[in-house]
Amino acid sequence: MDYERLIRVARGEEPADLLIKNAQIVNVLSGKIESGDVIIADGYFAGVGSYTNAGRVIDLKGKYIAPTYMDAHIHIESTMLTPAEFARAVLPKGTTSTVSDPHEIANVFGIRGIELMLKLSESLPFDFYFTLSSCVPATHMETSGAKITAEDLERLTLNPRIVALAELMNFPGVIFHDREVMAKLKLAHERKMIVDGHSPGLLGNDLNAYLCGGILSDHECTSVEEAREKLKKGMWIFLREGTTEKNLLELLPLVNDFTMSRMCIVSDDKDPVDILEVGHLNASVHLAVRNGISPTTAFRMASLNPASYYRLYFRGAIAPGYKADFQFLHNLEEDLLKPLAVFKDGKMVAENSELIVPISSPTIPEWAIRSVNLNRQLSADDFKVQPSGSKMRVINVILGQIFTKGEVIEVDGMRKAVPDPTEDILKLAVVERYSGQGKLSVGFVKGFGLKSGALASSVAHDSHNLICVGTNDNDMAYAINQLARLNGGLIAVNDGSIIGAVPLPLAGLMSVESATETARKLTLLLRAVKEKLSSSLDNPFMSLSFLALPVIPELKLTDKGLVDVNKFEIVSLFES
Amino acid sequence: MDYERLIRVARGEEPADLLIKNAQIVNVLSGKIESGDVIIADGYFAGVGSYTNAGRVIDLKGKYIAPTYMDAHIHIESTMLTPAEFARAVLPKGTTSTVSDPHEIANVFGIRGIELMLKLSESLPFDFYFTLSSCVPATHMETSGAKITAEDLERLTLNPRIVALAELMNFPGVIFHDREVMAKLKLAHERKMIVDGHSPGLLGNDLNAYLCGGILSDHECTSVEEAREKLKKGMWIFLREGTTEKNLLELLPLVNDFTMSRMCIVSDDKDPVDILEVGHLNASVHLAVRNGISPTTAFRMASLNPASYYRLYFRGAIAPGYKADFQFLHNLEEDLLKPLAVFKDGKMVAENSELIVPISSPTIPEWAIRSVNLNRQLSADDFKVQPSGSKMRVINVILGQIFTKGEVIEVDGMRKAVPDPTEDILKLAVVERYSGQGKLSVGFVKGFGLKSGALASSVAHDSHNLICVGTNDNDMAYAINQLARLNGGLIAVNDGSIIGAVPLPLAGLMSVESATETARKLTLLLRAVKEKLSSSLDNPFMSLSFLALPVIPELKLTDKGLVDVNKFEIVSLFES
Repeated sequence: MDYERLIRVARGEEPADLLIKNAQIVNVLSGKIESGDVIIADGYFAGVGSYTNAGRVIDLKGKYIAPTYMDAHIHIESTMLTPAEFARAVLPKGTTSTVSDPHEIANVFGIRGIELMLKLSESLPFDFYFTLSSCVPATHMETSGAKITAEDLERLTLNPRIVALAELMNFPGVIFHDREVMAKLKLAHERKMIVDGHSPGLLGNDLNAYLCGGILSDHECTSVEEAREKLKKGMWIFLREGTTEKNLLELLPLVNDFTMSRMCIVSDDKDPVDILEVGHLNASVHLAVRNGISPTTAFRMASLNPASYYRLYFRGAIAPGYKADFQFLHNLEEDLLKPLAVFKDGKMVAENSELIVPISSPTIPEWAIRSVNLNRQLSADDFKVQPSGSKMRVINVILGQIFTKGEVIEVDGMRKAVPDPTEDILKLAVVERYSGQGKLSVGFVKGFGLKSGALASSVAHDSHNLICVGTNDNDMAYAINQLARLNGGLIAVNDGSIIGAVPLPLAGLMSVESATETARKLTLLLRAVKEKLSSSLDNPFMSLSFLALPVIPELKLTDKGLVDVNKFEIVSLFES
Repeated sequence: MDYERLIRVARGEEPADLLIKNAQIVNVLSGKIESGDVIIADGYFAGVGSYTNAGRVIDLKGKYIAPTYMDAHIHIESTMLTPAEFARAVLPKGTTSTVSDPHEIANVFGIRGIELMLKLSESLPFDFYFTLSSCVPATHMETSGAKITAEDLERLTLNPRIVALAELMNFPGVIFHDREVMAKLKLAHERKMIVDGHSPGLLGNDLNAYLCGGILSDHECTSVEEAREKLKKGMWIFLREGTTEKNLLELLPLVNDFTMSRMCIVSDDKDPVDILEVGHLNASVHLAVRNGISPTTAFRMASLNPASYYRLYFRGAIAPGYKADFQFLHNLEEDLLKPLAVFKDGKMVAENSELIVPISSPTIPEWAIRSVNLNRQLSADDFKVQPSGSKMRVINVILGQIFTKGEVIEVDGMRKAVPDPTEDILKLAVVERYSGQGKLSVGFVKGFGLKSGALASSVAHDSHNLICVGTNDNDMAYAINQLARLNGGLIAVNDGSIIGAVPLPLAGLMSVESATETARKLTLLLRAVKEKLSSSLDNPFMSLSFLALPVIPELKLTDKGLVDVNKFEIVSLFES
């Protein structure tokens, strides 16, 4: 950064690169909308005030200039897009920066996966920051593609785009001071790194214990009471508005003079259809404003606050010396959804919702698109269940939530423990995808409402084995075999044929196609599932993807079996 | 820090060191007063909630527990006390931490002076942080005891108690990108250090230019308008309430929901009488509360906010994992001035305004108490002025301000340019104290109101040469000679005899006696000056100390001559 030129430009001694006249400035530092001129040089704001000297002038004629958005917590893998395609999708919506925990790819490829995300997100007109995945694998009750130790993480701590130890989901590991978890905390604190939290429902003295590990934030609050306790005990609260987990409106009443400096608006998990059709943080800011939050407050929680939390200074506001990442808006109401123009590092990158700069994706290495390793074809027999007791544990999916409820049913009513679509009792299977052996575990699930066929996915948090839900064993075997052939993705089959698929060959998590094409395929897939298989869920693949996640209560299925998350142990399918 | 024990204590599995029952908690994170128990282990808060298991229990019976204070900007040297004596004075008033720019001693001894302050502040029940003096000497228009370059500062950046590049007073140096100033900024930004600002009255495009240097704060605002512009351009605003510079009440109207997270209450310069008799930050917090600021907001600006600004995390609030620095208060009104007890790192250090732990001062090295080097006795002749024009520049002292006004008077009315106490025109001299040659410059000043005698001081910002104001040349020479004999300090003489003195042999800036004894001598000195010399100022030595500071407008006197600060150049005493 050439401070001297910036200083000369600020004093009007040298022409700015760009002068924006007659702007209404959304000032997240003062909380006011202020009139003035803004000048830019070398990608930074040099001054706000009254200026004339510039190489290029834009007269805003009273329109708004606002900071662009930084998403403090989003998993790029969940968007199914490469970093380049993600940037292409969200830049026109006013997002110019994200902080991501690459723990999906880290569970598949380990440190090599994190390094790949760093590589794939280089040299783009977008700031991709990452956090160091702290829980790979999430638990010992599943098979992941890799294991990451504190020593593995150490060499990455010096990378300037690594800004924190990622969400410490293994909160029992903190509370019961697991050796490996404590080693990672020690590393983070020695390096003066931020430690992100993840502690759904954790309150009281257990929350105190978790915080004693030096945990700084939470994005899992689902009620004002939970968020209030966490805030008053020192956590930053991230208001999550994702494709399925939507907590923003619930938590807005907590935003006040004391708390607003320690809250961020984040998305966590967003699918590409949601991003392209509804929006990214612009849609969440719009939602907050429509629900009574002042525009300056809403912007602050999506610009200055994320930057402050991650100690990325001189970002997230329109002020001298700050990075010139900004957008033009016609108004601060409906048009929040459609920025007139978006600038990154002082250069226009999008106009009228269209990207106007070229974005080229770096080459994806061959190993990264060969991550589903299944050396055998599965058959219907692999999915058979022999009852060994009179009572069976069933997973209950809760609409719009990633936690489940465990239920025990009498198997007398199910002659051989087979799916019963009329009662919405379906079979669920998780197939280990790394060793090639194709070992699997089978359970039962309620809440999908499929009437026929099967769905399978290689997106199955956090180990990303192959997960499948179905009404019959033949379709389940076929779905898994076809998914392996695609090198991963989302697939729906019915009566032995594919009715829709989104190939996600990059780590079995991300598409190598464009955002538009990926969204188009996802839309078709979801429509086919709804129309042909009669699923009752809006996005059954999103629900499916969380059924193997043994850090979120209550009953889950991994490749090693059924997990009682509250007991943190594997339990049998049948109770005697 | 033993995280594992803290976590066990938080869960109630192991007894805490201390349990505080039935507390009303001043929560600066939520802005509320909350009821609960607080437990402490190993000097940290382990939990807030409901607890029973502890080695020691204090039942507060509904009294308040609040964080202790951190002063984000104070010059320890200005208190005239060693760090140990300063800690002794302010611990009973609820201050447990300070961030100081040691630039007074740095101007006298250079890097060696900063290292001495680090050494003298070790191993005390108090957290002394320092910033790296950025402007030594403040300008080229004076002789200081040392010069500090960016290279000199570099090795100190790794010290964990060094938290910032100190107040960048040389704002013209930034605006006109002085080579040495830019080198220091570069060093700070490379090391990701905070850069404190100091820019009285700087506004508009010049302020923009200054901020482009990456400056983060200002403690020199004297009006709401000035502070509002600085805040909205990204600066943190420090509300200063010192012994002479009092800006808190003027700036309080700026405290609102958007700004309160970026404001701190600081003292900058406080004399020992003020500290012992009125108070430190406790008095400023009390003043803010009396003037309508909520107690939680006032506390936040003197605890959590300073810690956040200096990136000293897990400090400044009563929350799990935070450092257990706290105080008990009977109420949040008058008794803010008298904490019932003060705890540092979980241990009680003061009770009922009395220190209850031993504080021993480290030995002061011999070289540090021999800093006034005058190899000759001055005589009255040294102070004579020969008029060389018909108009003479006179410095006008402004009551309660550190800036002055320049005035031009006709010398016809003063036969030989001599002091005229009836018109309150006194002689001012600055004697260079480092080389031994005793070179001096002489000027005239209005506003002291002395009727006889002379005052001299080795505290003369920022180069700390010997400064003297007097009604006659004999007393001025005597005052300087006696001051040199004391190795520095404050002295008042009348008709050839000393009527009061505060010896400050440590760098000519600090007393080696106790806080009480230093304050007693200062009180006696000020009383003698008022009664015997009829000074019209409350603390003429404080005013005197700023008359040699050529970075604060408008007309000042250094050992090299009269300085027109606005022109930033030396001007002649007489206009032709």
